[in-house]
Amino acid sequence: MEAIKELSYALDTFYLLISGAFVMWMAAGFAMLEGGLVRSKNTTEILTKNIALYAIACVMYLICGYNIMYGDGINSIIPGISFFLGTDNTVEMVMAGGDDAPHYSKLADFFFQVVFVATAMSIVSGAVAERMKLWSFLAFAVVMTAFIYPVQGFWKWGGGFLDQAGFLDFAGSGVVHLAGAAAAFAGVLLLGARRGKYGKNGEINAIPGANMPMATLGTFILWLGWFGFNGGSELKISDIGEANAVAMVFVNTNAAAAGGVIAALITARLMFSKADLTMALNGALAGLVAITAEPLTPTPGLATLVGAIGGVLVVFAIVGMDKLKIDDPVGAISVHGIGGIWGLIAVTLSNPESSLGAQLLGVVSIFAWVFIASLIVWSILKAVLGIRVSEEEEYEGLDLVDCGIEAYPEFTGSHGSGK
Amino acid sequence: MEAIKELSYALDTFYLLISGAFVMWMAAGFAMLEGGLVRSKNTTEILTKNIALYAIACVMYLICGYNIMYGDGINSIIPGISFFLGTDNTVEMVMAGGDDAPHYSKLADFFFQVVFVATAMSIVSGAVAERMKLWSFLAFAVVMTAFIYPVQGFWKWGGGFLDQAGFLDFAGSGVVHLAGAAAAFAGVLLLGARRGKYGKNGEINAIPGANMPMATLGTFILWLGWFGFNGGSELKISDIGEANAVAMVFVNTNAAAAGGVIAALITARLMFSKADLTMALNGALAGLVAITAEPLTPTPGLATLVGAIGGVLVVFAIVGMDKLKIDDPVGAISVHGIGGIWGLIAVTLSNPESSLGAQLLGVVSIFAWVFIASLIVWSILKAVLGIRVSEEEEYEGLDLVDCGIEAYPEFTGSHGSGK
Amino acid sequence: MEAIKELSYALDTFYLLISGAFVMWMAAGFAMLEGGLVRSKNTTEILTKNIALYAIACVMYLICGYNIMYGDGINSIIPGISFFLGTDNTVEMVMAGGDDAPHYSKLADFFFQVVFVATAMSIVSGAVAERMKLWSFLAFAVVMTAFIYPVQGFWKWGGGFLDQAGFLDFAGSGVVHLAGAAAAFAGVLLLGARRGKYGKNGEINAIPGANMPMATLGTFILWLGWFGFNGGSELKISDIGEANAVAMVFVNTNAAAAGGVIAALITARLMFSKADLTMALNGALAGLVAITAEPLTPTPGLATLVGAIGGVLVVFAIVGMDKLKIDDPVGAISVHGIGGIWGLIAVTLSNPESSLGAQLLGVVSIFAWVFIASLIVWSILKAVLGIRVSEEEEYEGLDLVDCGIEAYPEFTGSHGSGK
Repeated sequence: MEAIKELSYALDTFYLLISGAFVMWMAAGFAMLEGGLVRSKNTTEILTKNIALYAIACVMYLICGYNIMYGDGINSIIPGISFFLGTDNTVEMVMAGGDDAPHYSKLADFFFQVVFVATAMSIVSGAVAERMKLWSFLAFAVVMTAFIYPVQGFWKWGGGFLDQAGFLDFAGSGVVHLAGAAAAFAGVLLLGARRGKYGKNGEINAIPGANMPMATLGTFILWLGWFGFNGGSELKISDIGEANAVAMVFVNTNAAAAGGVIAALITARLMFSKADLTMALNGALAGLVAITAEPLTPTPGLATLVGAIGGVLVVFAIVGMDKLKIDDPVGAISVHGIGGIWGLIAVTLSNPESSLGAQLLGVVSIFAWVFIASLIVWSILKAVLGIRVSEEEEYEGLDLVDCGIEAYPEFTGSHGSGK
Repeated sequence: MEAIKELSYALDTFYLLISGAFVMWMAAGFAMLEGGLVRSKNTTEILTKNIALYAIACVMYLICGYNIMYGDGINSIIPGISFFLGTDNTVEMVMAGGDDAPHYSKLADFFFQVVFVATAMSIVSGAVAERMKLWSFLAFAVVMTAFIYPVQGFWKWGGGFLDQAGFLDFAGSGVVHLAGAAAAFAGVLLLGARRGKYGKNGEINAIPGANMPMATLGTFILWLGWFGFNGGSELKISDIGEANAVAMVFVNTNAAAAGGVIAALITARLMFSKADLTMALNGALAGLVAITAEPLTPTPGLATLVGAIGGVLVVFAIVGMDKLKIDDPVGAISVHGIGGIWGLIAVTLSNPESSLGAQLLGVVSIFAWVFIASLIVWSILKAVLGIRVSEEEEYEGLDLVDCGIEAYPEFTGSHGSGK
Repeated sequence: MEAIKELSYALDTFYLLISGAFVMWMAAGFAMLEGGLVRSKNTTEILTKNIALYAIACVMYLICGYNIMYGDGINSIIPGISFFLGTDNTVEMVMAGGDDAPHYSKLADFFFQVVFVATAMSIVSGAVAERMKLWSFLAFAVVMTAFIYPVQGFWKWGGGFLDQAGFLDFAGSGVVHLAGAAAAFAGVLLLGARRGKYGKNGEINAIPGANMPMATLGTFILWLGWFGFNGGSELKISDIGEANAVAMVFVNTNAAAAGGVIAALITARLMFSKADLTMALNGALAGLVAITAEPLTPTPGLATLVGAIGGVLVVFAIVGMDKLKIDDPVGAISVHGIGGIWGLIAVTLSNPESSLGAQLLGVVSIFAWVFIASLIVWSILKAVLGIRVSEEEEYEGLDLVDCGIEAYPEFTGSHGSGK
């Protein structure tokens, strides 16, 4: 039996590591999605932000974020703090532990978790694109990944008060996606819209992204990565019941994304008379975000429906945000915020252990904490470093200002870079 | 021993799920390949087609396609029909089943199969690119993935008459690739060539694709995904013999693609005096398609040769199609049709259980069914909705007409989009 | 217990195959990275080189490279030669073998190794970009992958004299990365700089790459692939200790890349006052190369530091190479050569079994062998075929000259292709 425990531990560890690698790949997905949806003059900068924020997330979560989120809290609201990682499980711990014994490597768990915090942070970069100062953004990333995200992560996945209240969030519609959207929302409010986005007479000007194939690639990358995101969140695959559960999560994750694509495409067709690719992409992502809170208990048919509703909602949310003059160049707040809230509520459709009250408590708690904490940090950054580039710099594009490198020097050349 | 059965079931399920995720990734590969090989004015539209067809495939195969293909047939030719998925295997079923017991999750099997039907459908979108109406294409996708593909899938993998006749097709040179090519061929015949492709005096005009890096990326994605496509089709990895078999499949799949690249590159060099990248890419794909019917029994040397012959054939096939004025912008019919037929025949080179007669029966049956059924569906669509855009729309490009979004608004701008 | 051995063998084989697939994916990463960092007029050609070199590596390593590297050497310096692959392990060999029994498929091992040689060769293509003749390059690839690489691989991983001397190189900072860089260095010295790179008055002209999103994508692909590269090099995952080890390798690999990004970004900011995206990308890669020699024994904090030092070194190396007028368009020699040497030395920071002397012996032996052997081969090619395109061809771009296909025909058109 010891040999079986060893092998089982190995399989679960391998499954978590591969799942984590898939989630890491989502960083590329966000980079491509955001890089494709902004104008060429701001593309290098957003690519720089994306790779840098991923790196910062990895370092800060290693230094203290992971321990805040999964350490011993002072109570169920206030987490404890400690630094770096301890040693991994010994053979003795696994063998002697009975049913509560660790069944996978602690370091594999860290790897799986660290890529999640990077995902949350990636959501922010898209919403504040094309006008935020690079280094202020990176400073925010430090605080978000070291502290803001881990605190609410502790509340749910670390065993804090939301977990105790019965709030259910399988893989992070709230803890990851709503949290990212709330931080983005605070930033966007302080930052204001891009110049020229909203006209004086109330008109809303479309600012097309420079590279649709790249945005599409980004969406496919995210879709693929989500099998690790949701599939890995079962945290165990090594017996029949768990293997079936992981399979169900894969099927439902895929089904919800498919439902999101179709629903968003049809909704956009009805509203705009066009097969709007960006809405189809956002529909896929909204479907994925929506199923993330509960990809296990729905039937695949219901999962398709949950995703489809997410796909419809995201089209209305993007249109509505523009009406409110909240400028989110890639639709990140709509996809991850509205999609996340819908997903948390949709848990009640299939999971008998859920309650609408607990789900709403989670929505309000996560949003309030992340939004307010982010607003404070963004405000301090605004006062100290400034968060918005100058009018002249915005016109010139962030690439030359911040990075000194054009994204496509030969394709746009001197004739404009989308100015 | 029960614990070992549980673990073995978990490993096989995990292996199928990861394989399926790799195959899902092929959807991104087709999108990038086709998006790179068309002109910029039709790029957004083909990206939209690719993500939408994947979503449609997932939904239709869930609704009935899977059950047609793997359900109880009325007889060995006519499949039965039922809807949605049943429950997964119970622990009891696995334990009590003896040698015939299920050894992986049913839902994992569904996931692995659903991404295959999407692959077949992806083949079609490339061949009809740059002139087909978006919504007619999507309507065809509904019928293809719900019915046409599953019927012939049932004939082989569902235990129908082709399986009984000894037709061998390990991972789908016929069931997936030839089927996709046959559906595409029917569409292309009804649709006609792109304007300007074939001149009045018999000249053939090259219409270069807009983005070679993207096409190359697509090919690499497909190559990677093929390890899941072929590797997962062994369906079991959990003992020494099966693990060795999966390893052989990986090695041979890679070898055949490599052989295809080299052979196509040299063939193109001899014919055109240039190292033609698109031929190298199609050579890789033809090699992959060719080895798909039998990646297990050849030695790696033979697999390289099977792929290399595929690579030579595809160059001649592409040239030949143009001589016949059959316009296939991405070479999909040559790659998947000719490559698929060659692969089915090549089974006889290494598998002693194969017979040329059974292989040819498979080729004829699959081609005839899919071609005729598709021709009927395309014809109905042509009569009801129309399948070809207007001359004016073709000139303007499908992106603005169907999608309202340019793929690269800043790179081509008003000076042409490849008109 | 036999059933456990079977299952364990299956898990280790699956782990190696998936790791190998991740490393194969790095071929796409190099293609995208190099394709993004050259000018558009040379993009098709470098894509062709990348897919062709991968194919050549697969074939040559199958024919004899693998057997040179892992066969029976004549002595500890001179390897033996045999051809193609033998049969895989039988059940009997696994069961009867005791502790020395094979614990994974031989073919899976071949698959994992063959993608490594492709990686080494990919390093070369970037450094010689934009001026080397395509077919001479491919001829070099034949010799490099069939012979030059396998010989030094035998010295370490095949049990040759470097292994016996206590030289440590976990996953190939030396055997793969320094070897690739040494071959590239020899080629670059014979080839000379691109026209216009270094002015008559000592000025260094930046030649910006055409497509930053593609270069960024390539870096993310490499980062992802590196989990297979390093993670798979543990070669076993099927018990608690090994699973923990693989998890540690994943965590440290990721941490080093993150450290490299941040350090390179800050270094570039201090030196150039800009957040230089290409330096951030090269920082990630240098961090990855640096940790490759020893990703197991450092703590994650130390791994971050090893990567960060790699990130600093690469910025200085790239600047220094330009001062020496050694023209390496993508920084490959700096990343893989300097990063590799640093990584081999850094082994001594955490691994008590290492010695600085043995590490330096490895550096010198690998560099000397690959550099001299490559210099001879490049020289023969220069004399026989020529290795550099004509001045006129270099001006026109290699795409039209060698491939007959423009990478982006609609974006650059007749107005220049970066001339």
